Amino acid sequence: MDGRAVWGRVGETRVELLSGSPLEGEPGVLGTIPVAGAVWLPPVVPGVFYAVGYNYPRHIEHAGAATPERPEVGYRANNALTGHRSPIVRPAEVTGRFEAEPELVAVIGRTVRHATYDDARKAVFGWTIGNDVSARTWQHQDRTFWRSKNSDTFKPMGPWIETEVDALAQTTTLSVNDEVRATFPTGDMVFDPFDHIVEITRHITLHPGDVLWMGAESTCQIDPGDTVEVAISGIGVLSNPVHLEGNHS
Amino acid sequence: MDGRAVWGRVGETRVELLSGSPLEGEPGVLGTIPVAGAVWLPPVVPGVFYAVGYNYPRHIEHAGAATPERPEVGYRANNALTGHRSPIVRPAEVTGRFEAEPELVAVIGRTVRHATYDDARKAVFGWTIGNDVSARTWQHQDRTFWRSKNSDTFKPMGPWIETEVDALAQTTTLSVNDEVRATFPTGDMVFDPFDHIVEITRHITLHPGDVLWMGAESTCQIDPGDTVEVAISGIGVLSNPVHLEGNHS
Repeated sequence: MDGRAVWGRVGETRVELLSGSPLEGEPGVLGTIPVAGAVWLPPVVPGVFYAVGYNYPRHIEHAGAATPERPEVGYRANNALTGHRSPIVRPAEVTGRFEAEPELVAVIGRTVRHATYDDARKAVFGWTIGNDVSARTWQHQDRTFWRSKNSDTFKPMGPWIETEVDALAQTTTLSVNDEVRATFPTGDMVFDPFDHIVEITRHITLHPGDVLWMGAESTCQIDPGDTVEVAISGIGVLSNPVHLEGNHS
Repeated sequence: MDGRAVWGRVGETRVELLSGSPLEGEPGVLGTIPVAGAVWLPPVVPGVFYAVGYNYPRHIEHAGAATPERPEVGYRANNALTGHRSPIVRPAEVTGRFEAEPELVAVIGRTVRHATYDDARKAVFGWTIGNDVSARTWQHQDRTFWRSKNSDTFKPMGPWIETEVDALAQTTTLSVNDEVRATFPTGDMVFDPFDHIVEITRHITLHPGDVLWMGAESTCQIDPGDTVEVAISGIGVLSNPVHLEGNHS
């Protein structure tokens, strides 16, 4: 609004602009704009950005990895976040496979520690969509995922947070240039988001705004000039063009 | 102040309470309190919490690891941060070695991408001290460092940010119950903080408030009942008691 970033409540045709974060209270409505006029930022910037690795049986089988015996998480970095419709910029020096990973994202709404499964359900404010863009050559070369998964623009998230959906009963679809590359049941996980919240909060306090990316079953190559879309039924579609660094066309 | 957390400028005997973050402008002075009356929080909560692993030649040799060919970083998580004098809480189920790692921390003061070495020097707002507390059994069992290094209270940071020091010309000392357990030249690194900033910002934008923990040369065991201190000459002393979970004595 007037060049400032504000929270919004997204309706069918209009966005209500809010006076504050709905994660922190009951914000007032400052005005409305048409949905078509919105510029989309990541719907939240987390205090901690959790990401699950191997969590879909077919992904684990494909990777030849062991099925995890209990939930485990890693981290991604906020610098890499970008919003719906913003470009994923492939660094000029990236070689080899450059891939999209379509993921369900749980957005935490409460401060929670030592959660039961029921507490964990209540701790989720809502659901959004993430694309865990990965440069595979760097992923294999490096000791950590710092540049392979956390270079600027490698973590599109959005378009919004859906608060009224049974997220685990949905279908995830990954498309490039309107061609479907993968589709899988969103909830076909080894451990679901609530299992992860129970395990994490044995040792760690989760805070409002923290996000938990739930892993992907399938991935696909993306190239400069493509538009990649991650759709989760009941939530929305996260769409991003792919650019080559230094090339703003 | 009045139960609220505020920024402060720490002098010899008094702390000036500030109207905002000195990372974001020139805050005004709200009042002063005696240094002895302060409750210390982590001096900054980063947008991204970077941590260097192998970076001291003697640590690398001791671990039998390969010397890194270029700077590389991992991540830690904000939930684990705690301030000077606050307890490190060892979870009840931790077994095996529970260790302190004394680290220099660079606090970023500018938005920076594609930094030269000189840009990197200018991008550091100041220096603080971190203790990268680690539960080794979990570290070896788990695929990531999520609970071994990021359980609540495992990342003491403070006591403050020193803006006027040649941090790499100092000495780091690790003590338990006033007994020195390790001492090493703070700057005896494979790659210094500015080398890391140059490498990171090839692909990643650093933002004001981001922190970069620089690794440790030596570690030592800490047990409930101990008080662990990390001192870096010219910066200060970060002191934390160690508690056992569920035991508030």
